[in-house]
Amino acid sequence: MQYLVECVPNFSEGRNFSKIKKIANSAAKVGGVRVLDLEWDKSHNRSLVTIVGTPEAVLQGAFEMIKTATKLIDMRKHKGEHPRIGATDVVPFVPLSGVSLKECVVLSNKLAKKVAKELKIPVYLYEAAAKKADRVNLADVRKGEYEGLQIEIEKNTSRKPDYGQSKMHPTAGATVIGARKYLIAYNVNLDTKNVDIAKKIAAKIREKGGGLSGVKALGFKVGGFAQVSMNLVDFEKTNFDEAYRAIEKEAKNLKVEIRNSEIYGMLPLEALVRSTVKTFKAGNFKSDQVLEKRLYE
Amino acid sequence: MQYLVECVPNFSEGRNFSKIKKIANSAAKVGGVRVLDLEWDKSHNRSLVTIVGTPEAVLQGAFEMIKTATKLIDMRKHKGEHPRIGATDVVPFVPLSGVSLKECVVLSNKLAKKVAKELKIPVYLYEAAAKKADRVNLADVRKGEYEGLQIEIEKNTSRKPDYGQSKMHPTAGATVIGARKYLIAYNVNLDTKNVDIAKKIAAKIREKGGGLSGVKALGFKVGGFAQVSMNLVDFEKTNFDEAYRAIEKEAKNLKVEIRNSEIYGMLPLEALVRSTVKTFKAGNFKSDQVLEKRLYE
Repeated sequence: MQYLVECVPNFSEGRNFSKIKKIANSAAKVGGVRVLDLEWDKSHNRSLVTIVGTPEAVLQGAFEMIKTATKLIDMRKHKGEHPRIGATDVVPFVPLSGVSLKECVVLSNKLAKKVAKELKIPVYLYEAAAKKADRVNLADVRKGEYEGLQIEIEKNTSRKPDYGQSKMHPTAGATVIGARKYLIAYNVNLDTKNVDIAKKIAAKIREKGGGLSGVKALGFKVGGFAQVSMNLVDFEKTNFDEAYRAIEKEAKNLKVEIRNSEIYGMLPLEALVRSTVKTFKAGNFKSDQVLEKRLYE
Repeated sequence: MQYLVECVPNFSEGRNFSKIKKIANSAAKVGGVRVLDLEWDKSHNRSLVTIVGTPEAVLQGAFEMIKTATKLIDMRKHKGEHPRIGATDVVPFVPLSGVSLKECVVLSNKLAKKVAKELKIPVYLYEAAAKKADRVNLADVRKGEYEGLQIEIEKNTSRKPDYGQSKMHPTAGATVIGARKYLIAYNVNLDTKNVDIAKKIAAKIREKGGGLSGVKALGFKVGGFAQVSMNLVDFEKTNFDEAYRAIEKEAKNLKVEIRNSEIYGMLPLEALVRSTVKTFKAGNFKSDQVLEKRLYE
């Protein structure tokens, strides 16, 4: 059995590649941590590093990156389109294999405590790790951004951080740490140029509209065709195969066919296994039957 | 990119577990070889060891096992229900990842040459590695078994081995080495107790009956219900999802539903990825998007 956690810290540096690399490298040096992905955006002036490993290794890797980012990024000079409150802006832990969301909440608390104590950065906990209802959503925690929070944190008790003092770190600002489930980005393209059909279907299948649990969906026009673009925020509740079938059914009612679908970015093997079990009624099929998984246990 | 080959040698020892373990251990000692599975059958008096690794490591692992089996098994005393011609009876190489069937044919020839030269065992090449049309099928190569081949090999030129002398090894007999594609064992259970329906569907979908390429199928009654039991000998031609849909269609014509399906034993990640691509029209989806695969590259 493998115990694997993913962590995707977002840093407020998207222009100086040498700094971005230094941040990622400080995680790569930690034994048991793999840096899987590195993305940056100049207009957002923001980067994100995807690391994976055992829970303790990932905790250490995330801390090392935050430490490096604290040294390299000065929020007083930071400008970018994306909302942010600190040099290390947000740090989500994601359970991958053999680890529960609860354990990722424990990791969030450990990291938050360490960051507040050793780096003197105030930390807010969000999503599954949130201690207050109004901190579940990242947007709420980031309200006012670096500039606004700098004042609010000292005078507004409702903005008191979960760990650390009620005072911004002079250059690194504040940080949001938390835990969430693995998110699968999944798009279904329809054989119509009428974007309203995608919007209608999105409205029907998304959780907010009384549709599928854990599904966020919007209708867009992409490459000339209507697309239902989804975030599946809990694939154990609604996996991509179920989303596909739900859209297929709604599309059929509207006399539209599915052109194709796109799994965007990475997904855990378990999502493929579960879709196979459901689609082919293969109730006994387990990820241990996948050769590649067995090879590296 | 990983270069992975599987090898599943079959040995004529299924009763003495200490001997079976010694054989498997001689492969486990080779760096880069993983012993994934060990199976034995007392009535067949036969065992099989599944090893996986890089091509050169697996070649060496297979050779070490054959060497150990040659020391431990005496074919003059061997009795068992399963057809066999030697202590190491048959050694198939199977391409798993980044390796072609052709490269497994090359491996077969290397191993055959080494076994003939160093262990003095005559070797026949079969399946994709066969040098003669009448040696493609294992049953043809094994005709007469150990006892019959002992005489035939010396006097019948058509039974001359591909490597080594035309004379059985006194205790280890002869060995068959070759290359084949990965085989997926897949069963579809029907919601009927009428086995004739399973037999009818099997006859229609199997390659022999003009059905799906690379599909061997039989109808059985299992647990009181009709089952279409398949070997998919080339999942790149016909994968389990396509077999499922073909059976679903035939069953529908006969007014029967599918109860469930079973993927039996292991399968490569690529089979899951391809079934996802086909079933959900996800043409761009690649195995590199599966987190677990990326982790161990």
